[in-house]
Amino acid sequence: MEANLTFFYVTAIIISVLAFGTAIWLYRWVASRPSSNKKVAEVGQLIKNGANTFLAKEYKVLTRFTIVVALLIFVFLPSPIWKGDVLANITMTVSYIFGTVFSAIAGKIGISIATIANVKSAEAATKGIKPSFMAGYRGGAVMGMAVVGSSLFGVTLVLLLTGNTSALLGFSFGASSLALFAKAGGGIFTKTADVSADLAGKVELGIPEDDPRNPAVIADNVGDNVGDVAGMGADLFDSNVASMAAALVMAASLGNPEKNMGMVLCYAGIGLLASIIGVFTANMKEGGDPTRALNTNTYVTTIIYGVLTAVATFAFGFDWRIWGASAIGLVVGTIIGITSDYFTNDNKKPVHMVAKACESGPAFTITSGVSYGLLSGLPAMIGIGISALAAYKLVAPLGAGGNEVAYGMFGIAMAAVGMLSIVGMIISNDAYGPIVDNARGLVEMGDLGDKALEITDSLDSAGNTVKAVTKGFSIGAAGLTVIALLGAFITEVNDGIAALGLNIEKLTGFDVTDPVVFFGLLVGAAIPPVFSAMLMLGVDRNAQRMIAEIHRQFKEIVGLREGKEGVKPEYDKCIEIATTGALKELIPAGLVAIVSTMVVGFIGGVQAVGGFITGNIVSGLIFALFMSNSGGLWDNTKKYIEAGNHGGKNSEAHKAAVIGDTVGDPFKDTAGPSINTQITVVTLVASIMATLFLTLSIF
Amino acid sequence: MEANLTFFYVTAIIISVLAFGTAIWLYRWVASRPSSNKKVAEVGQLIKNGANTFLAKEYKVLTRFTIVVALLIFVFLPSPIWKGDVLANITMTVSYIFGTVFSAIAGKIGISIATIANVKSAEAATKGIKPSFMAGYRGGAVMGMAVVGSSLFGVTLVLLLTGNTSALLGFSFGASSLALFAKAGGGIFTKTADVSADLAGKVELGIPEDDPRNPAVIADNVGDNVGDVAGMGADLFDSNVASMAAALVMAASLGNPEKNMGMVLCYAGIGLLASIIGVFTANMKEGGDPTRALNTNTYVTTIIYGVLTAVATFAFGFDWRIWGASAIGLVVGTIIGITSDYFTNDNKKPVHMVAKACESGPAFTITSGVSYGLLSGLPAMIGIGISALAAYKLVAPLGAGGNEVAYGMFGIAMAAVGMLSIVGMIISNDAYGPIVDNARGLVEMGDLGDKALEITDSLDSAGNTVKAVTKGFSIGAAGLTVIALLGAFITEVNDGIAALGLNIEKLTGFDVTDPVVFFGLLVGAAIPPVFSAMLMLGVDRNAQRMIAEIHRQFKEIVGLREGKEGVKPEYDKCIEIATTGALKELIPAGLVAIVSTMVVGFIGGVQAVGGFITGNIVSGLIFALFMSNSGGLWDNTKKYIEAGNHGGKNSEAHKAAVIGDTVGDPFKDTAGPSINTQITVVTLVASIMATLFLTLSIF
Repeated sequence: MEANLTFFYVTAIIISVLAFGTAIWLYRWVASRPSSNKKVAEVGQLIKNGANTFLAKEYKVLTRFTIVVALLIFVFLPSPIWKGDVLANITMTVSYIFGTVFSAIAGKIGISIATIANVKSAEAATKGIKPSFMAGYRGGAVMGMAVVGSSLFGVTLVLLLTGNTSALLGFSFGASSLALFAKAGGGIFTKTADVSADLAGKVELGIPEDDPRNPAVIADNVGDNVGDVAGMGADLFDSNVASMAAALVMAASLGNPEKNMGMVLCYAGIGLLASIIGVFTANMKEGGDPTRALNTNTYVTTIIYGVLTAVATFAFGFDWRIWGASAIGLVVGTIIGITSDYFTNDNKKPVHMVAKACESGPAFTITSGVSYGLLSGLPAMIGIGISALAAYKLVAPLGAGGNEVAYGMFGIAMAAVGMLSIVGMIISNDAYGPIVDNARGLVEMGDLGDKALEITDSLDSAGNTVKAVTKGFSIGAAGLTVIALLGAFITEVNDGIAALGLNIEKLTGFDVTDPVVFFGLLVGAAIPPVFSAMLMLGVDRNAQRMIAEIHRQFKEIVGLREGKEGVKPEYDKCIEIATTGALKELIPAGLVAIVSTMVVGFIGGVQAVGGFITGNIVSGLIFALFMSNSGGLWDNTKKYIEAGNHGGKNSEAHKAAVIGDTVGDPFKDTAGPSINTQITVVTLVASIMATLFLTLSIF
Repeated sequence: MEANLTFFYVTAIIISVLAFGTAIWLYRWVASRPSSNKKVAEVGQLIKNGANTFLAKEYKVLTRFTIVVALLIFVFLPSPIWKGDVLANITMTVSYIFGTVFSAIAGKIGISIATIANVKSAEAATKGIKPSFMAGYRGGAVMGMAVVGSSLFGVTLVLLLTGNTSALLGFSFGASSLALFAKAGGGIFTKTADVSADLAGKVELGIPEDDPRNPAVIADNVGDNVGDVAGMGADLFDSNVASMAAALVMAASLGNPEKNMGMVLCYAGIGLLASIIGVFTANMKEGGDPTRALNTNTYVTTIIYGVLTAVATFAFGFDWRIWGASAIGLVVGTIIGITSDYFTNDNKKPVHMVAKACESGPAFTITSGVSYGLLSGLPAMIGIGISALAAYKLVAPLGAGGNEVAYGMFGIAMAAVGMLSIVGMIISNDAYGPIVDNARGLVEMGDLGDKALEITDSLDSAGNTVKAVTKGFSIGAAGLTVIALLGAFITEVNDGIAALGLNIEKLTGFDVTDPVVFFGLLVGAAIPPVFSAMLMLGVDRNAQRMIAEIHRQFKEIVGLREGKEGVKPEYDKCIEIATTGALKELIPAGLVAIVSTMVVGFIGGVQAVGGFITGNIVSGLIFALFMSNSGGLWDNTKKYIEAGNHGGKNSEAHKAAVIGDTVGDPFKDTAGPSINTQITVVTLVASIMATLFLTLSIF
């Protein structure tokens, strides 16, 4: 069967609309679940308002940022406006704005459903595990459908309107710059609130966790939503768009671009379709195991994707080698997720060893946790390396006769598309986590009874287990995507050389023995640690500001400490501090990543940038894996000890584990997962500025 | 003036012999200082015996290791014996054995003088700061002269005997494989003893620090010597040899090899000469500042080196561009040292911020210390990158007409030679540290009075400050050296291609967009964290074994706990446990580095190995800087708080700082500084196995 590109455009849009429809259906389904408890509703409303306050503030700042960047893009990119083609600059600017708007909407939808689903899941827990699970899961799935639907829709739309794959990089940059701020900003917010609430409330004032007298308690719950739901959604939106953009940019420059681009859209569309089916098959029996239910959906989706893409490959005459590349990506993504799970699961050796080390004191908790985190990088790095190598070697022969490299890189891009095909499912599983985590808090605050608490406990624990897998998965996906983006960068540079009629050789790669490349490599590798450090120091500083505010409220609000009827803390103040502080602390870190790319580019040109991107990817992946896995490991070690091992709660081992967990919080929820986005942003900045680096660098 | 290579051989040997003479003179000078206190002598003897016990055990294991490796080299390298030239294999084997023996002798000399100088420096402190400083400093200088003298002597000798630069790589591999074990083994030993003595003695049994009843107390003091003196000496011996080897291998493959090789030897000889002069100008007035005295020597040496090499360049008609490259290396080495100092000096912001964070609890101590450690990588990485770039660009034009790359890489090698030229001075300053540290302990245990304690305190503190600079310096030097070794690897591969008459293109570099290179890059980058993690976990496990032994002794030896007259713990048992355990824990870590290089090479061939080395260098440098600097920062934060800030000793902030310091111990004394050697070993393994990877790889 022959199908032209328009067919795939239309199909992609239909499937996106189907995803939106599914999201709306699921949203209504969740919203129509019964809820009646006043106390739960009241706290739920506070969390909802807090999250909206954060989003409003955040989007205000980001709007200003977006306007400034949009103006800069309009004047300078892809070429300075006085030299180049004004229309190209307008296209790039509009695509960029599109990217930010789509990403922002996805975040907004996520927050909106998560702050409903938490209440519904909490109340449903009084009736049984099944309805509680379904409310949480389908809440998460709204986010999954919205994010993946809008990324496919956005990419198709930009392509249809502009007919220009470079514009896709602008769209992707818009999405990822917003994701950078959403992820890192949400990460700083949530850990600021978490740490402050614990330190000022539990430790200093001696009031219990989640006590409504604590002015930071709502901010803490808000943080789960803005950090884990909105931030993570933006992150995966960004990876998903970037992987499609990279594949499409390369597809457009290969022989038979229509067919190859159609294939990219087809595979991405099938991934979304498989996720929709997976969401609806998600179910569990009363008394079932929620972890198993979540994992089953993932396997179902994976199989559906594999079968449907095979059918499509056969039907439309796509090349089987490319199908193989995408399958490799998917399988390796799953394997990386499983190894992440090994390092953080409380049934496995690392958690047991760290828990044992806790008995010797906090220093051993830290050194052993750091050690296992450092070890955890190896299998994932090997996995990413092998999948890239295998995908390349599989697809390269299609370019026999001089085009092997371009096809090989395209193979890597298709592996990334394959890995990200089930991202709808991954986001659904991931967003489920904070929803049921919130639900557990609401059950406790609303006094919904021990049975409900037990149910939400088991749902929460499943969320944590699955989270390790999805985090490993998203780091792996980011890794493959940015390797593919490196290919897109080369394509952009060569397009620039051709367009400007420059008298230089076409770029074929980056040789590390070229000292300009090596210089870029060293500097690029130093950026992810600097970026992480700035975020962690931001959390520290911001927490100090919030603790001061908590002290002020306890001093100035009469009757607050005693819990006098009707006296309430000013929750909004804490939320405002967390918000303002998060945005203030985050901007320098984001700018360091963006500006350092530009500085290296203007010093060393495209060769240095190639090295810079490579160094950034390599060290970024290691630090992301290290920080995420060490953090997850400490979290689960604390829970393992709290479950009664090594002396249980309030033992010396437990105290040491709490210190480990507090160190792990900014590791796993602020710095670690933000690195993904940082890598992508750097690579996209490089790509959209390729022409400038070509013409304006010193070396 | 024209001078042939023989002239430089002879000169190099004369200067080496001069260095040996200086070492002997200094040794005698130190040994002839007066000492009379019996208690000091007794404890000093215990430390000496302990260190010798360790060395004997270590050298026994390493002899076995060396024999096995030597046999493997004989059979397989540079080519399998049944295919290649038997003489070449014998040459490589003998060179390798030479390298290990020289390195071992340097370590032995270091231990031998350090365990005399500590006693002399302690007793001299009763007379004033000047004699105490001189005993410590000249003790360190014995090590400096011995190490640098034997590296120059060894390199010249191997070259004279074999006339083959590839044999130098075998010599260098011998030195670095021994250094790997000496550095990491010493590092595990010292931290095992330190941590166990603290935990079992101070915390559990409530006896004071350095109490002679503690069975681990002598092991702790021995650790300072075997970790800091012998280990560090082996490490810098290794870097020094590697930098000369890399430069000579490349020099031999350029036009006019005689002249270029002569220049390398000439510059290295002048560096050693400058260090000898520097050692003799080292002096301080009564009441002077020891830190200033140490730094002044370094500056004097640097200037002498600059002037003498300029004179030599003029006199022998060497190229000024190459002189420039070596000067760049030296200047940048100093700058990197200064930035390391910023991040660890207790007069600077990072220490003050971490000390403030200690008030909020240990979790903040860790997160802020980790953050500053991560930040500290950036300036050093930029420095290494810029010096490599500048040296390359400066020297490349000499190869105009097709040989630019080879000359450029040679420029980087000469920058490394320049950076390491003052290594004699650096080792002297560095070995001074543990000697006066030991002296301080001896003053305390020997009751030599408050004035002596004050003096040794100030000498010790100067040692700590200078240590930060020398650590930064040695990481920078390792960085440049391994970049140069990457060039040597290419030379080896191309020599292999020519020798075997293979019908493949000459290797020109490593393109990161080649997926085989990228695969190597990802795996190579994951190795330094894995290596560090294995060493840190080794410390944890080993400490548990030693703590069990301490418990046993306190249970079984009657009267020990009460401090009954004449009852002594079995110090040797603890030393034996530390030794055996250290060697047991270290071997897997060393093997992972070596074997992973081989696996990658046999899978992906020389391209994958090029990527592997690159990834290893980049991530190795970042982790070495991060761990060394975070560790130093925590150490000085504890001291800063103990000096009376933020509540002083026994405050909550102090407790948090102690936890930070304990985490920092294996960071800065086990894992961090061992990474240097790990990188060098990997690069050398790759170089000596180049031919095998060419012929036997899968891809």
